[in-house]
Amino acid sequence: MTSTLPRKDRFHLPEGLIYLDGNSLGPLPLGVTERVEAVMRREWGGELIRAWNSAEWMALPQKVGDRIGRLIGAPAGSVATGDTLSIKVYQALAAALRLRPDRRVILSDSGNFPTDLYMAQGLVDLLGQGYEIRTPAPEEVAGAITDEVAAVMLTQVDYRSGRMHDMGALTRAAHDAGAVMIWDLAHSAGAVPVDMAGCGAEFAVGCTYKYLNGGPGAPAFIYVRPDMVEDVAPVLAGWLGHAAPFAFEPDYRPAMSVERLRVGTPPILQLAALDAALDVWDGVTMEEIRAASITLSELFIAEVEARCPQLTLASPRAAEQRGSQVSFAFEHGYAAMQALIAHGVIGDFRAPDIMRFGFTPLYLDETDVRAAVDVMAKVLDDELYRDPAYQTRSRVT
Amino acid sequence: MTSTLPRKDRFHLPEGLIYLDGNSLGPLPLGVTERVEAVMRREWGGELIRAWNSAEWMALPQKVGDRIGRLIGAPAGSVATGDTLSIKVYQALAAALRLRPDRRVILSDSGNFPTDLYMAQGLVDLLGQGYEIRTPAPEEVAGAITDEVAAVMLTQVDYRSGRMHDMGALTRAAHDAGAVMIWDLAHSAGAVPVDMAGCGAEFAVGCTYKYLNGGPGAPAFIYVRPDMVEDVAPVLAGWLGHAAPFAFEPDYRPAMSVERLRVGTPPILQLAALDAALDVWDGVTMEEIRAASITLSELFIAEVEARCPQLTLASPRAAEQRGSQVSFAFEHGYAAMQALIAHGVIGDFRAPDIMRFGFTPLYLDETDVRAAVDVMAKVLDDELYRDPAYQTRSRVT
Repeated sequence: MTSTLPRKDRFHLPEGLIYLDGNSLGPLPLGVTERVEAVMRREWGGELIRAWNSAEWMALPQKVGDRIGRLIGAPAGSVATGDTLSIKVYQALAAALRLRPDRRVILSDSGNFPTDLYMAQGLVDLLGQGYEIRTPAPEEVAGAITDEVAAVMLTQVDYRSGRMHDMGALTRAAHDAGAVMIWDLAHSAGAVPVDMAGCGAEFAVGCTYKYLNGGPGAPAFIYVRPDMVEDVAPVLAGWLGHAAPFAFEPDYRPAMSVERLRVGTPPILQLAALDAALDVWDGVTMEEIRAASITLSELFIAEVEARCPQLTLASPRAAEQRGSQVSFAFEHGYAAMQALIAHGVIGDFRAPDIMRFGFTPLYLDETDVRAAVDVMAKVLDDELYRDPAYQTRSRVT
Repeated sequence: MTSTLPRKDRFHLPEGLIYLDGNSLGPLPLGVTERVEAVMRREWGGELIRAWNSAEWMALPQKVGDRIGRLIGAPAGSVATGDTLSIKVYQALAAALRLRPDRRVILSDSGNFPTDLYMAQGLVDLLGQGYEIRTPAPEEVAGAITDEVAAVMLTQVDYRSGRMHDMGALTRAAHDAGAVMIWDLAHSAGAVPVDMAGCGAEFAVGCTYKYLNGGPGAPAFIYVRPDMVEDVAPVLAGWLGHAAPFAFEPDYRPAMSVERLRVGTPPILQLAALDAALDVWDGVTMEEIRAASITLSELFIAEVEARCPQLTLASPRAAEQRGSQVSFAFEHGYAAMQALIAHGVIGDFRAPDIMRFGFTPLYLDETDVRAAVDVMAKVLDDELYRDPAYQTRSRVT
């Protein structure tokens, strides 16, 4: 089979730039601007309030959820979209605790993305009653799943190192101990093959502005295992999760589907952008993406290790243990990343010393990888990172 | 002083349409499409991840918050934006309960918008421990504020009838009883003058897609009284409410400002649309808006009562007790509204029998009001609402 990758002609990619930060914000796919413009001019401008029906705005969250579902192995009707990933984490966690009322422990790992842990902390502080969060090292999670644990909440791919948890094995371990399993797919959706239906986890959450290229602040998603959705407490019980939102009933009555995890009025402009961005995935399989991602990542590691001895690999060396990013540690990592960016190679930096590079086969090829390493070698060999201009920290890195 | 109203030339308004539903979804202001297009092409497309700094995306939520603050009498730095109104209701309620740990009652009223009550119900169900919600009739709220009440949560302007609560008096009553006051300004912001600083309430929340014309799914806002913001528990403790979001600290440490009520990654496309939409308000005072709104509403009531005897006023007759909408009850209200819409006058319907009309002086004048009543009289006198085409309920009305 001929590869359908890369599809560079489906993206707006600035000339002369190598973009290795699609794991933070994906680039603008072709057609997105036109779609959002049409939503504004024709639908909002021309139809006004009628567009909720006539332009099918009301159906958009579910339509987009189903399109995401296809990329994470989730059946139609099992993924709801909206809000931010932080909110979706809170919903999953709160619902999980309600499913295990006699248990008091949320188990995560010390490498989880901070907002997941912060949201858990906010929930635990609100509940009191002895609830606690445990965060062992990632490799010690399996051993820490005891029968005190109500919910295991893990991010499959570590945001810093790219280390990947084994979803199947950890989900089984959680279930063996009677715990509910929640997967955060922020760095998985569109990056690696995910089999939600197969792994049996109760919940998954994720964002869409990284590998799914939905744009800045694109809506999040939440998956609920279909057989148990009617047992899930929609703790954030907003009107759009109601069985009949426009009946304006005085009491909350949850939708008998994953839509019960919708909350408020959906962000139509962002959803339309995401919907159009998902067109890029038509005809691509996650297996094809994964194979290309490994090829690019392995090439990158080999080239960097050959030409940039100043850097130390901070990701697992074995491809099967890595997501779609590669990280290197470097003492002057912040300044070196600024210098790289100034020279046309965009990755990002994560404290304390991690230079992070995302590999996105939709719009990257081996020529890009080699060219990026050319620039890296120059930045490091000529110590360009010592320029004072690259030392000042901006708020977003 | 010459009136600056209406400013019809600042909006895209379809030819031949009279839009009396700006209280549900405001029309598209001029310049919004261009702004969002620039954000997509130049910033997202051209700057990619760098735009968080270079295009000041990170500062946008606070900038927009300050612009909203000006319209609700709130000082700079006291309004945070993001998420949906439902989420902001939850944050305010949860924080209020934490401020009054010895009390167990949330007091609202039976006319409050359902999602406010649903969110309260979700919170109370999660907390257990004897928490309860009381919903007396709107006119009986003042008498129901006892020393059991932790939080009084009211929508200033009733979504169905337009009846308006007295913010100053009820806030004083809440404080006299030791309760925390939360105002929902969904039908107030941009509709009536609001004096958050003057009324002394601890919290206000609101949405921006109605009178503020921010577009479908535009972000919500939350106000916290500045002197107490450091005592507010950010129960939805997301990373963008952290004092240093990009330090990726393992523990949550809230921002020492209203930004602690931010949660996840801000929806930049929607925020940019809202920011551009707020330009329409430059040089307009809420007093001027209010005066024009009363003129239009009084004319509408007089004309309808003179020419449409089939309808019964369902809003307070006294202008000072009404927001910027007028409702009429009619047995065949649903079908009559469909017929009206088909004949170019857009209002909306709220169960069981309310025909609702919003008055938005930015783009409506007396000629529009008279023309709308011409159509209403014809629909009613000719019983056009009996056409079977107008009987089928769509999901959004």
